[in-house]
Amino acid sequence: MADINEIAKVFVDFYYGNFDADRKNLRNVYKDISMLTFEGQQIRGVNGIIEKLTSLGFQRIQHKIQTVDAQPSHPSAGSILISVTGQLLTDNEENPQRFSQTFQLVPDGPGNYFIYNDIFRLCYM
Amino acid sequence: MADINEIAKVFVDFYYGNFDADRKNLRNVYKDISMLTFEGQQIRGVNGIIEKLTSLGFQRIQHKIQTVDAQPSHPSAGSILISVTGQLLTDNEENPQRFSQTFQLVPDGPGNYFIYNDIFRLCYM
Repeated sequence: MADINEIAKVFVDFYYGNFDADRKNLRNVYKDISMLTFEGQQIRGVNGIIEKLTSLGFQRIQHKIQTVDAQPSHPSAGSILISVTGQLLTDNEENPQRFSQTFQLVPDGPGNYFIYNDIFRLCYM
Repeated sequence: MADINEIAKVFVDFYYGNFDADRKNLRNVYKDISMLTFEGQQIRGVNGIIEKLTSLGFQRIQHKIQTVDAQPSHPSAGSILISVTGQLLTDNEENPQRFSQTFQLVPDGPGNYFIYNDIFRLCYM
């Protein structure tokens, strides 16, 4: 089995790369049982989650990842907890905003995972 | 069963209240299978975790919680994912630091939980 830190890195590169290029591409990593809490708003299921992500009020976004930490989230199920901190820039903004995002990835067939939990917060002062 | 947002709030009040009063008191919420990733350093087991928390280089600390988000982290096991953002002040520092902390609580008998996962990061600019 691949090291979970390596899985976390591959996932984070994939997730934010697709988020910044075309958020619709993230449809395949969520399922109907997936949950997103976005700035306190709770959404369940891939359709609602993609609708939320694609309706956010900016045209362009760029994530800059600062830290990625991963732990196994179950003694035997192979699920992975990932905590990310970083900065994001939208449209023509010059001042980046800090964010914190937590994922739990759950195995979905050999070598594949889907996002079961997703919690996103901007870090205000 | 109590609402998970309520459980998260009770846990957060308990955790940071004890952290700020006397970190040794947190011994009861970790077990030998618990994991802590503290600013990238990985520690496993209650003894190592408490040793880490009590050896941090400040005498006084005060956490101010800004956001608490909770989701069920398993379809049936009753475990809870909690993501916290906030500020902390140590000793005589006047400028607070932002932090992000993620917990997974796992049931430990009726109405009780222990911390299985704990990931802590300061949010730098």
